[in-house]
Amino acid sequence: MLSAADRTRLTVVLVGARNPSNIGAAARAMQDFGFTDLRIVNDYAAPFEAAQIEDSQTPKSAVGAASVMQQARRFSTLPEAIADCTLIAGTTAIGERDLHRTILTLQQASPRILSELQHPATSTNQSVPPRVALLFGSEKTGLTNEHLSHCSLLVTIPLFAPEAARHLSMNLGQSVAVCLYELTREGLEGAKELPILHESPATAEDRERLTQLLLDVMHATGYTRRFPANAAEPLVRQLTQQLGATHRESMTWMGILRQILYRESK
Amino acid sequence: MLSAADRTRLTVVLVGARNPSNIGAAARAMQDFGFTDLRIVNDYAAPFEAAQIEDSQTPKSAVGAASVMQQARRFSTLPEAIADCTLIAGTTAIGERDLHRTILTLQQASPRILSELQHPATSTNQSVPPRVALLFGSEKTGLTNEHLSHCSLLVTIPLFAPEAARHLSMNLGQSVAVCLYELTREGLEGAKELPILHESPATAEDRERLTQLLLDVMHATGYTRRFPANAAEPLVRQLTQQLGATHRESMTWMGILRQILYRESK
Repeated sequence: MLSAADRTRLTVVLVGARNPSNIGAAARAMQDFGFTDLRIVNDYAAPFEAAQIEDSQTPKSAVGAASVMQQARRFSTLPEAIADCTLIAGTTAIGERDLHRTILTLQQASPRILSELQHPATSTNQSVPPRVALLFGSEKTGLTNEHLSHCSLLVTIPLFAPEAARHLSMNLGQSVAVCLYELTREGLEGAKELPILHESPATAEDRERLTQLLLDVMHATGYTRRFPANAAEPLVRQLTQQLGATHRESMTWMGILRQILYRESK
Repeated sequence: MLSAADRTRLTVVLVGARNPSNIGAAARAMQDFGFTDLRIVNDYAAPFEAAQIEDSQTPKSAVGAASVMQQARRFSTLPEAIADCTLIAGTTAIGERDLHRTILTLQQASPRILSELQHPATSTNQSVPPRVALLFGSEKTGLTNEHLSHCSLLVTIPLFAPEAARHLSMNLGQSVAVCLYELTREGLEGAKELPILHESPATAEDRERLTQLLLDVMHATGYTRRFPANAAEPLVRQLTQQLGATHRESMTWMGILRQILYRESK
């Protein structure tokens, strides 16, 4: 369960993103999962500024992520962007290059990242509050070996590899969404609660009343006489298990069956 | 672990998607996670046809998903699109409407979906091969109550809800990516394997040699004399735990330390 305070300690860093709508899509994923600190590393300001123009039509991708975009900051170099971060996790597609380093799947890396977010005291230097930087490269090149050399954790999202070799890298916004989903998968303080089902579930008693009513209907309509093998009570009881998950639905079914009986009795 | 055959039994159904680049983004997420059967429910063909035009600039979002788009099919109505499916799962944002039905989180729903994909025999009608339809609504409206009435399973991706009420619904491509990630999280036959680390990890012996070398360096350079409290062997041993994760890196560190000693000895 990530608390609101835990979530403020995660920074998403987009390195070399050149497409404003990709920046917007990343911001939207952050807003959806309750994260706020977005940093862009880019040696020129144009894409960042384009992504920040809220009332422009570009990027539509940032719809609903205005507050993340407004707080976002641009840096010229990666070391500046991550200077205050204590754990640097770089996302990378599994390519052909030999990294000489261990890569973890997102699922494997998640506990280490969560522990840094949730237990400030585990930081080696207690005077610096822990902060996790989650780095994403540009769609075209991903993070370079130079970028990855700043990372203490290399993370990959396991993808399907068809026979035909192809450079595997996900859409940027989708990568950010999948990573933040994994980190909040076990719970998110402030998440919209699943609605409480006001409906009572159907009880065994409801089901038994339905079974008896269905038997009556089968008898009254002549079905039982024509197909006695299908009309055995255990078979009919099994049939009614499928009628109505809730008490209300069961009541509706009973009403339907009673109406049939009423018509038959006339 | 989803096998290749299991994956062919999942159908992604986009209901009312009107933006070709959203259709393309969904196709790309499917390709990334190894799924192939995409169906579009739309009463007019334009968005689907636009998404299928591969060499057009629109949608760039489908880059790398050509084979999914080529096999995709359009249907005019939802019942036609899901006619051969045995488990219908509808994704929905948690809105204000009262559904009178149980909604599961994606994590809760995943085992039921995987069981249908992996164990054909669990299907109630064994003459029909099981097929799971995973339904996504349009960005604007989501799935309507009418659409959801076709579903036996309602699924939501838990999102963060800020105080300011806002209609919570994720970007379509991001939703598809997150759902397919959850379904393949425990493994994906044919996924690109994590690269085998050819580097040997550093051994305790490597670390001990490093510790002794570092102690020698501290002594030779006069550090030990100036800061004896920092030069106790256990403290230095703890310091060297951070030097080099692999044998190769340890060797590099040793070389650096030896070079310092060599300079000092001259």
